[in-house]
Amino acid sequence: MSYALGLRTEEGLVLAADSRTNAGADQVSVFRKLHVFEKPGERFLVLAVIGNLSLAQALISELRAQCGRQARARTGAASLIDAVSMSEAARSVGQAIRALEAQESHALARHGVAFDVTALLGGQIGRDKHRLFQIYPAGNFIEAGDEVPYFQIGERKFGKPVLDLAASSEASLAQAVKLALLSFDATVQNNATVGLPVDLIAMPRDRFSAVLQRRFAADDPYWGQLRRDWQEGTRALLAGLPEIEPLAKGGKLIRLHTN
Amino acid sequence: MSYALGLRTEEGLVLAADSRTNAGADQVSVFRKLHVFEKPGERFLVLAVIGNLSLAQALISELRAQCGRQARARTGAASLIDAVSMSEAARSVGQAIRALEAQESHALARHGVAFDVTALLGGQIGRDKHRLFQIYPAGNFIEAGDEVPYFQIGERKFGKPVLDLAASSEASLAQAVKLALLSFDATVQNNATVGLPVDLIAMPRDRFSAVLQRRFAADDPYWGQLRRDWQEGTRALLAGLPEIEPLAKGGKLIRLHTN
Repeated sequence: MSYALGLRTEEGLVLAADSRTNAGADQVSVFRKLHVFEKPGERFLVLAVIGNLSLAQALISELRAQCGRQARARTGAASLIDAVSMSEAARSVGQAIRALEAQESHALARHGVAFDVTALLGGQIGRDKHRLFQIYPAGNFIEAGDEVPYFQIGERKFGKPVLDLAASSEASLAQAVKLALLSFDATVQNNATVGLPVDLIAMPRDRFSAVLQRRFAADDPYWGQLRRDWQEGTRALLAGLPEIEPLAKGGKLIRLHTN
Repeated sequence: MSYALGLRTEEGLVLAADSRTNAGADQVSVFRKLHVFEKPGERFLVLAVIGNLSLAQALISELRAQCGRQARARTGAASLIDAVSMSEAARSVGQAIRALEAQESHALARHGVAFDVTALLGGQIGRDKHRLFQIYPAGNFIEAGDEVPYFQIGERKFGKPVLDLAASSEASLAQAVKLALLSFDATVQNNATVGLPVDLIAMPRDRFSAVLQRRFAADDPYWGQLRRDWQEGTRALLAGLPEIEPLAKGGKLIRLHTN
């Protein structure tokens, strides 16, 4: 299991992914799961891919090859570097996943390995607004809206409550970075298959480049400070919240037992 | 899926469980999952049981029947009402689960139904200290210690981060109630199979009775206030945490992309 997260706010996009790959508890490695496709001043796309590592690598490799060989000219289908919109780019990733499935899934199935590859794609192309997509192993995809301005893939449960508290399309990019790091913090604490370092990219809208592109290791000073401030702050907050009346007044008091 | 939680602090115990049972998305009912076994002034035990509803009900029914027929006199094994210690009580629940498995699991397996019943047992008997156990479907059990003073069973992931922040064996009972309610809040928001109302029992040590025994419905005023205070407080806290330097100073800035 891995964890990747994309947040979309009016100010821009934040994408983050852990870097742990494991085949059993004693075969653990670090592999990058965030990949950038860009044309300066015109497009900046970030793709997070999780799932079976051989499939994730094959997908990235094929998508990079398409960029090199000007896929549209040859096949009519867009590559990430010549797609005219983010939705065309998402479709292009979906098509590449489907082609990979056709090529790989039968051989994998014979060895009991599921076809497992899921992606988040965030970015902006030309005058199209910045957008965020989640692309499924079947190659279909969905887009984040204002009401739920984030997508999580992989080990998503531990990192969701902090997003529920404060993720909003009105959040600043700096707020979105805090949320992403706290969401990863809750996850790496609780699932040994999600591991540091965490790669994170923040891109403001209309800039076509990253304002922050950083690998956060265990000893990262900003993340460490954020973690401590959050723990101390929430503990103090919790201590100050009103206590319940020893025997309920507002609610219905019921007896649960017999004997 | 259900969710039940037990917290043990120096001051006492808090146990809580949701009350939703579902067999498919359109067959949802309310059943109590918290059960009290007590002898005033001498013992107070709370058992939370989740899993297959027929098994949970059969287990409680058998444990109550044992209390009635003075199991120890007949079979040498203790019932929850004559066990001399909490570990004997936990063993008694484990034995009842094993007997139930022997009786039910083959017929269930023929219909593709797994033997699924898990319990938390918290309480205090006589001069034994107050203790908290988790009992597995195999009838074996573990006890909470000071370092991890809580157990969760069922849909436990969403409700864990708030426990990570502040659960401690030094927490007051009132703090433990807040933590339990916030943990359930994060869970019911995110998993439709965990549903309100939530039953909660708080028992101080050495009192052999509950100080709070309450069913929390969606409109419970205390819980509602706690939720609002927590959301507003954490949002304000997050907004005030330091922002990251737009281009990293403390960490290693790396380029992730090509092209």
